Amino acid sequence: MAQRVVSSRRASRSEPARPTVALVTGKAALRRALDQARAAGRTVGLVPTMGALHDGHAALIRRAATECDVVAVTVFVNPLQFHRPDDLAAYPRNLDGDVAVAAAAGARLVFAPTGTEMYGAGAQVRVHLAGLADRLEGAARPGHFDGVATVCTKLFGLAGLCRAYFGEKDFQQVAVVRRLVQDLDLPVEIVACPTVRDGDGLALSSRNALLTPHERDAAPALHQALRLGVARVAAGERDPAAIAAAVAAALGTEPRFRLDRVDMVDADTLEAPGGRTTRLRILAAAHLGRVRLIDNLGVEI
Amino acid sequence: MAQRVVSSRRASRSEPARPTVALVTGKAALRRALDQARAAGRTVGLVPTMGALHDGHAALIRRAATECDVVAVTVFVNPLQFHRPDDLAAYPRNLDGDVAVAAAAGARLVFAPTGTEMYGAGAQVRVHLAGLADRLEGAARPGHFDGVATVCTKLFGLAGLCRAYFGEKDFQQVAVVRRLVQDLDLPVEIVACPTVRDGDGLALSSRNALLTPHERDAAPALHQALRLGVARVAAGERDPAAIAAAVAAALGTEPRFRLDRVDMVDADTLEAPGGRTTRLRILAAAHLGRVRLIDNLGVEI
Repeated sequence: MAQRVVSSRRASRSEPARPTVALVTGKAALRRALDQARAAGRTVGLVPTMGALHDGHAALIRRAATECDVVAVTVFVNPLQFHRPDDLAAYPRNLDGDVAVAAAAGARLVFAPTGTEMYGAGAQVRVHLAGLADRLEGAARPGHFDGVATVCTKLFGLAGLCRAYFGEKDFQQVAVVRRLVQDLDLPVEIVACPTVRDGDGLALSSRNALLTPHERDAAPALHQALRLGVARVAAGERDPAAIAAAVAAALGTEPRFRLDRVDMVDADTLEAPGGRTTRLRILAAAHLGRVRLIDNLGVEI
Repeated sequence: MAQRVVSSRRASRSEPARPTVALVTGKAALRRALDQARAAGRTVGLVPTMGALHDGHAALIRRAATECDVVAVTVFVNPLQFHRPDDLAAYPRNLDGDVAVAAAAGARLVFAPTGTEMYGAGAQVRVHLAGLADRLEGAARPGHFDGVATVCTKLFGLAGLCRAYFGEKDFQQVAVVRRLVQDLDLPVEIVACPTVRDGDGLALSSRNALLTPHERDAAPALHQALRLGVARVAAGERDPAAIAAAVAAALGTEPRFRLDRVDMVDADTLEAPGGRTTRLRILAAAHLGRVRLIDNLGVEI
């Protein structure tokens, strides 16, 4: 199992010691490191990512580092969760940069396996969540959440007892992973962290790197449209179709966007709001050039 | 969480202390007990069962007790793995007897949850093994191995790092569970144990209790037919169809049996034997009255 230790910045005699992070590529090495940490009485935080780490990931890692003794960041562009081969091929990759971000944010370990190491030959298993995985983003991207659930079950199996940190930008993913852990009795506590945004409101996403400057200028319109939806709810509108239409109309004023879907759901069940709903979530997906962006906002009623 | 301690036999002053076993019904209690055992440096053995324990189960427990410090037996008639509601309803149940068998064989813990405790409300997850779960018994009992894989993933999630013991009477189940552990990176070592048979050759099974005395007399014919198949292989026959026909003809001499299926496969892949096959397995399923019996035998070539 390859393992190398990387300093987040070059150290010199005049500087204090810099945080270091171990890069491991083997599953057995990850399991061993985290088993040893727990055996020494340390708690483990896990931050599963697909790499191309940005400030949103850094916030997850910093949060994990304040709550856990040892933080492991996993970097794996999981082919199972990609519906479109071109999307998988285009997904940004930058392992050296990821290691630097992870180290600076307080991680002790980066696990970056190859696809062969992760799945081996002839892997047959799929973890499916009937219902939750088939709606909203799951309907738009068939098999996506099965891929998420399968890789997360594997990562949790390797990591063992831990807290695992996920960003609310992928709101349905958080719900899927929570459900997964509950339904499979995995010894993992899921921690959801708020979406991190650029100054103009655009939710940080690895896919933002694929936007042209022209598209990047238009990108905050998605967040602005969701904010308008939240304002309508705050003003008393409760009809999901009316809110969806308002968000769609707002995004329609930015011609570079092509709306894929917008839904307002109960934030706890991700189903249509009902009499017991106290928290709503408005979720949208839209194409901007060749990039598909998602975002969401919550509102209490 | 209910927990009671049961002595395997009534103790008196003149007898030495009898083995005792703790009966737990809550998932949290099981997890806590096994976490505590490992924290104290003890190894854990898990024997998942559907109860109605017989000498085959006792052999698994005894083997686990020789290889592990603490043995937990799970007793749960898993509705997910039953294709037919009448089969589920008829499945024998005897928790008091199970606790006594487990204690006498060396278990320290019996975990016997209710269905509600095990699955909770609205559980959505299914673990599916494409290929392996759909063939042979999986073709005869749609969804059966998804149910097995799902409940085993949950039991392994609760038990944590352990060795888990399964009987080869359910040969394809062993293959499914091995594949599950490998594909999901679960920290579990699967140990397969030989089928235990009555003196007349009948493989021990909880379902044998459902046979009438008249049917029980006929039941060894299944094992005898499989032995004839093995003898044909030993005599040089390699054609799976010819072996299957020979086994079917042999079982046909016992009119109380109705053959469901017989297959000869590569014992490692459970696929059709090929040029690299070194171990064959002949597997059969047959109805005897209202009971469906399965059995299998191996032969090296």
